[in-house]
Amino acid sequence: MDLGTTPLLTDLYQLNMIQAYLDRGETRLAVFELFFRKLPPRRNFLMAAGLESALAFLERLRFGEAELAWLRRSGRFGAALLDYLRELRFDGDVDAMAEGELFFADEPILRVTAPLPLAQLVESRLINILHFQTLIASKAARLVLSAPGKLLVDFGLRRAHGAEAALMAARASYIAGFAGTATLLAEAEFGIPAYGTMAHSFVQAHDDETQAFENFARARPANLTLLIDTYDTQAGAEKVVALAPRLRAVGIAIAAVRLDSGDLDALSRGVRRILDRGGLHDTAIFASGGLDEDVIATLMRAGAPIDGFGVGTSLTTSNDVAALDCAYKLQEYAGRARRKRSTGKATWPGRKQVWRRFDGERRMAGDIVTLSDAPASGTPLLRRVMTGGRRVAPPESLAMARRRAADNLAALPATWRGLAQAASPYPVRIADDVRQLAEEVDRFMERSSP
Amino acid sequence: MDLGTTPLLTDLYQLNMIQAYLDRGETRLAVFELFFRKLPPRRNFLMAAGLESALAFLERLRFGEAELAWLRRSGRFGAALLDYLRELRFDGDVDAMAEGELFFADEPILRVTAPLPLAQLVESRLINILHFQTLIASKAARLVLSAPGKLLVDFGLRRAHGAEAALMAARASYIAGFAGTATLLAEAEFGIPAYGTMAHSFVQAHDDETQAFENFARARPANLTLLIDTYDTQAGAEKVVALAPRLRAVGIAIAAVRLDSGDLDALSRGVRRILDRGGLHDTAIFASGGLDEDVIATLMRAGAPIDGFGVGTSLTTSNDVAALDCAYKLQEYAGRARRKRSTGKATWPGRKQVWRRFDGERRMAGDIVTLSDAPASGTPLLRRVMTGGRRVAPPESLAMARRRAADNLAALPATWRGLAQAASPYPVRIADDVRQLAEEVDRFMERSSP
Repeated sequence: MDLGTTPLLTDLYQLNMIQAYLDRGETRLAVFELFFRKLPPRRNFLMAAGLESALAFLERLRFGEAELAWLRRSGRFGAALLDYLRELRFDGDVDAMAEGELFFADEPILRVTAPLPLAQLVESRLINILHFQTLIASKAARLVLSAPGKLLVDFGLRRAHGAEAALMAARASYIAGFAGTATLLAEAEFGIPAYGTMAHSFVQAHDDETQAFENFARARPANLTLLIDTYDTQAGAEKVVALAPRLRAVGIAIAAVRLDSGDLDALSRGVRRILDRGGLHDTAIFASGGLDEDVIATLMRAGAPIDGFGVGTSLTTSNDVAALDCAYKLQEYAGRARRKRSTGKATWPGRKQVWRRFDGERRMAGDIVTLSDAPASGTPLLRRVMTGGRRVAPPESLAMARRRAADNLAALPATWRGLAQAASPYPVRIADDVRQLAEEVDRFMERSSP
Repeated sequence: MDLGTTPLLTDLYQLNMIQAYLDRGETRLAVFELFFRKLPPRRNFLMAAGLESALAFLERLRFGEAELAWLRRSGRFGAALLDYLRELRFDGDVDAMAEGELFFADEPILRVTAPLPLAQLVESRLINILHFQTLIASKAARLVLSAPGKLLVDFGLRRAHGAEAALMAARASYIAGFAGTATLLAEAEFGIPAYGTMAHSFVQAHDDETQAFENFARARPANLTLLIDTYDTQAGAEKVVALAPRLRAVGIAIAAVRLDSGDLDALSRGVRRILDRGGLHDTAIFASGGLDEDVIATLMRAGAPIDGFGVGTSLTTSNDVAALDCAYKLQEYAGRARRKRSTGKATWPGRKQVWRRFDGERRMAGDIVTLSDAPASGTPLLRRVMTGGRRVAPPESLAMARRRAADNLAALPATWRGLAQAASPYPVRIADDVRQLAEEVDRFMERSSP
């Protein structure tokens, strides 16, 4: 069973419910929407990501013989359910926001319209895919905003939560505007540029730091970056200056030095001075080590002469906010709107559309959430991406999503671009038709289930 | 390429360094140790997990034709490196702490002894595997300590960071003492008991809540748990009581009700009264929805009549501490001890052992970190698990790791069992032989690289 595609990567209760639905023939059309309930502190927007992975999951959805055999052996389910699962393919419709789109609380980013058991089954993995990539794209966008014009590289494989998290974080951060990633597999799988420097162990394995630099330079001369903080950063910079002529003589330029510890503001200034004094004006300074958007913003404000940043843990775990309040909720079944009213978790019923208005300078000016068949009132953000289980267009390129993300960030007004929580949230209005429908649903439920 | 096993899931710099090592024949024996630099706030201990996954990764390590072809196409590497990678297998030694063992800052939990390029190559994925499972086992252990005697179930698939995170979190939390998981694949892959209730959508899909309960009960009568907070929790409980006789008549008992929102303390008391008044003394109350160890501890202290907890996001993302400060560092190369001295990130050199002392009541009484060939001074925690790339014993069962975790938690003194940060850390002493070696390494480096 392949971990990324097996339909057993779901919550047991999904199959329990499907069994109950099948027992009573409850297989009429259901509409589920995926949305984020409220933005956490210090998130003024979210950036949609993961749709392509979600569609690939839906396209490949099937219970293979291994899964069916295991389900049978588990003794939990009857033959009718197993027969149903054997034939199951995703044949529903999907409407969704494109990757790279900015969105806000209460705005659906994906709608699934499919027979109830099928729409229910895919919940767990759909959230698992879309929540994580959206989480990381949103975090990465903050990093991008904190370092305008700087080179940002994902360094987060080792602390990412497992293999898929590492790969998907590389993907989501690239969409959001990162230049690339240290994770080689992301280049192999997605064509995301891989960046690589050297580790402290390389320096340590040599008795002499300069010798380590020289050996590495001769082996990997292209885009050469030397890590200079293994013992003493400023001494490391002096060694780089001393080595440079010997390398230049054989045609090797030192593209950058990397600092990975200590006071990056002070060290980068000291190192810049040493490099410049040694004539290495074109050698860039690249920083890493425990960076996040706040540290980077502080360095930028201080004017630290740093040209690029490798961001690891804070990016790939979104460590200040490791999860978002995301839900996939039934909004309509068998032609009737539905609504959950649990304390603090009530939902807006029906099929909805998100419309965005722009001002004269193409800045985002406010969103409105209406029922999906309401007349146009701006640019609609949810578009049909799958009909009857088939994509309506070929997979979008990462370059396209990346461009959309950049356009969106450029269109975001200053009020919501900062790292701190804005005084008031970006304006999202729930339209009257949605509110009226909610009241109707409530009245109906009170009549039918007193 | 399988995401979980492809050796391309590594940082590009590993291959850059290997190229440089091969160019100069630097393939002598290296010793790397994996350890955690310091514990984050509110973590008084960590619990080792992930070793079995790490060993499986090492056993399977190989560059297949697809990987080699891609590396060749990338144009980055020469034929000699590709030939080397084609033949590469993990043939090193591994010493490690067993899963379920508690440990502390500066204690190595894994040592790899292998030719330098090989020991370097495996760094990224080894950390990726061991960091995450240790993170989650450590978080789960806090949850276990906060709810003695209660049933704890992992509900975290949807907010986990991808597929592997979900599966590995189920595994790590089961080791730490969780009863099971909602993630079906974890039962299929690891035999971890799967638990499943029902979702709000099931209730919403029915016009009548009682009808939803009854349909579900008839379809899934075993260990029946009804979710009662979709509209009004107390009204839901009344409906359960009214329904119970009809179900009892057909031999179905309502094992539990689930609350997923609102004031769980007040609601659980109200629901308990309603159930008891209706004669449903054996119907348990199960709670979920945004729980973490602090919320659970508060509910337990208040005496809320809750019998079990489903914990999702806070468990599988370890949301208060989404990453630990974990490192894999070169401690010896070619027979000579090595040490990194970067500001705030200096390491203790040499091959080390962790010894634990116990008091007369088998409580943990303090650890000491010595060089690995020092005379015994307690119970050694690192044991040989792989020699020349082969395991010295068959894979350990999850049950065994789970028992060790329980024994370890029982042996942890009260001072470090609390959720808050203890006044002083658990005593870990770095032995004099390690300190002397560090000084020798420093003197050697100063002589050789002035």
